[in-house]
Amino acid sequence: MPELRKDPISGRWVIISTNRGKRPSDFGRTIEERRGGFCPFCGGNEATTPPEVLAYRNPNSLPNTAGWSLRVVPNKFPALQIEGGLHKVGEGMFDKMNGVGAHEVLIETPKHDMTIPQMELKDVENMFWGFRDRILDLKKDERFKYIMVFKNHGSAAGASLEHPHSQLIALPIVPLVVQTEMEGASTYYNYKDRCVFCDIIHQEQTMQARLVSENDDFIVICPYAPRFPFETWVLPKHHSSVFEDCRKGEYTNLARALQQTITRMDKVLQDPPYNFIIHNAPLHEEHEVPYYHWHIEIMPKLTKVAGFEWGTGFYINPTPPEDAATFLREIDI
Amino acid sequence: MPELRKDPISGRWVIISTNRGKRPSDFGRTIEERRGGFCPFCGGNEATTPPEVLAYRNPNSLPNTAGWSLRVVPNKFPALQIEGGLHKVGEGMFDKMNGVGAHEVLIETPKHDMTIPQMELKDVENMFWGFRDRILDLKKDERFKYIMVFKNHGSAAGASLEHPHSQLIALPIVPLVVQTEMEGASTYYNYKDRCVFCDIIHQEQTMQARLVSENDDFIVICPYAPRFPFETWVLPKHHSSVFEDCRKGEYTNLARALQQTITRMDKVLQDPPYNFIIHNAPLHEEHEVPYYHWHIEIMPKLTKVAGFEWGTGFYINPTPPEDAATFLREIDI
Repeated sequence: MPELRKDPISGRWVIISTNRGKRPSDFGRTIEERRGGFCPFCGGNEATTPPEVLAYRNPNSLPNTAGWSLRVVPNKFPALQIEGGLHKVGEGMFDKMNGVGAHEVLIETPKHDMTIPQMELKDVENMFWGFRDRILDLKKDERFKYIMVFKNHGSAAGASLEHPHSQLIALPIVPLVVQTEMEGASTYYNYKDRCVFCDIIHQEQTMQARLVSENDDFIVICPYAPRFPFETWVLPKHHSSVFEDCRKGEYTNLARALQQTITRMDKVLQDPPYNFIIHNAPLHEEHEVPYYHWHIEIMPKLTKVAGFEWGTGFYINPTPPEDAATFLREIDI
Repeated sequence: MPELRKDPISGRWVIISTNRGKRPSDFGRTIEERRGGFCPFCGGNEATTPPEVLAYRNPNSLPNTAGWSLRVVPNKFPALQIEGGLHKVGEGMFDKMNGVGAHEVLIETPKHDMTIPQMELKDVENMFWGFRDRILDLKKDERFKYIMVFKNHGSAAGASLEHPHSQLIALPIVPLVVQTEMEGASTYYNYKDRCVFCDIIHQEQTMQARLVSENDDFIVICPYAPRFPFETWVLPKHHSSVFEDCRKGEYTNLARALQQTITRMDKVLQDPPYNFIIHNAPLHEEHEVPYYHWHIEIMPKLTKVAGFEWGTGFYINPTPPEDAATFLREIDI
């Protein structure tokens, strides 16, 4: 059973994989060796993954066979284990609990050689419907306090398989980064009686300098104080703290905004590896909170930029967001 | 002039290099091309760096000529600029100030092909004396609130030059990571009336499982909830919140502890790239605070491990610290 351990100084929880611990010789081997070889996520290879927990499939097809357009399966090598109680316990002065949680993989398409820019718009939209369906199911589990939804694209961004996929991790704790964001947004709201994200949207629409694009429901900006070069956020214009509450039309426009943004990045930065993360309110908050605003943060991983930041937690960004936004906005797509 | 900008949600300050902004084509080029070519840090090339602000040198030698064993120079491409006022100002809802600060490079030895394990113990000790001398000088400047002292070793860890060197950055703000640490330590102290780090030292000495080594003044441990595999901390046994207050004998034992630890890492992990950071109390705190305890955090950068963490700020560590400590403790050095 993996463990969740709390750093007694910062209060940060980390997952420690106690049962598949990596030995020194495991580092340095890249996971790319699977490239070109067998892919468990490809259509036809359904039997090689754990059984699906969700699939959008041809009504005449059977579960765990071909005939799907989107599939969600438990991660074969999960960071957390779905069964068991939390068993919160002290270890001397330290705090830990069982690494209980869900770790699922959303396979975005049965086709191996696809990227988000190459996918059909409806398949990108379905990815968001898939996230929503899984969140609605996972949040019924009272043990969970937060669901992280993210995509790693490219091995430098942490992807271990090439086939287009994203991940969900349901956690029994709220990550420190989310906690800091919630507290900051709440402090702003208490002071101004307005949502900080709504204010950001308003200001970026007025100033234009960091605006990448807009459609009826979403705005894409390079944020004012980005940690990383070409860091880009996609925010709903309509205030909502809950990603899974989107109406159907909104997911189409979200898919359009995300696909266009990654197309822009691919053209400006030559297909960079990237991470995107859905920042969503923790579970068990009041259903809608006025001070928080869900959004997506996209971070291209540009070679050798992150060494210093990784070590220190302090960020030096060599590309002003106004420059990044100009490059992204002006590229032909 | 670079800018310090504050993220309005998290309160995190980031440095934005507005004047030497990186364009898309600047990414992807590694900085390794200097390898084997001319090195400005080598003995004899003193004229190619900015003039030294500190040197330990042969009393008969002239400044900025050969004859030194340690040299500190301003960074030729500083992230911050030393001249000017802070000029704190709003930009609509956002907050910024001039990127005023010092960015210095400490050249640890005139010899190019050296690593900390290969250096003479007295040269490693001098590195710490050099940090101390520069901190004592920089802290006279009322504009500065924090001095970051760190080393990037290897290009994957962010080093742009191979020659052994470390860096000091004096900042007009306290980084969020330091603020979180100070607040956490202070909360613990208010509750327990003891320093959390002193308690950690006591517990690790008792339990032994995460202990790497000890000498008269320092203890080396893998922390209970490490973010990264083989993350290792060096802590003074004697409570102190201020690195620069060490007595002379302490720096010898600190040099011994650091050199041995990196030697262990080099053997166990085959010369990994790494970062180390001195965690020190902010300036202008009361001179000694009972709740904070300065220390060094060393993080080997093990290939491809950090992609997910980099993007999400949430850490999954595949190596339990008890395993890491065992490998490091048991290797022959």
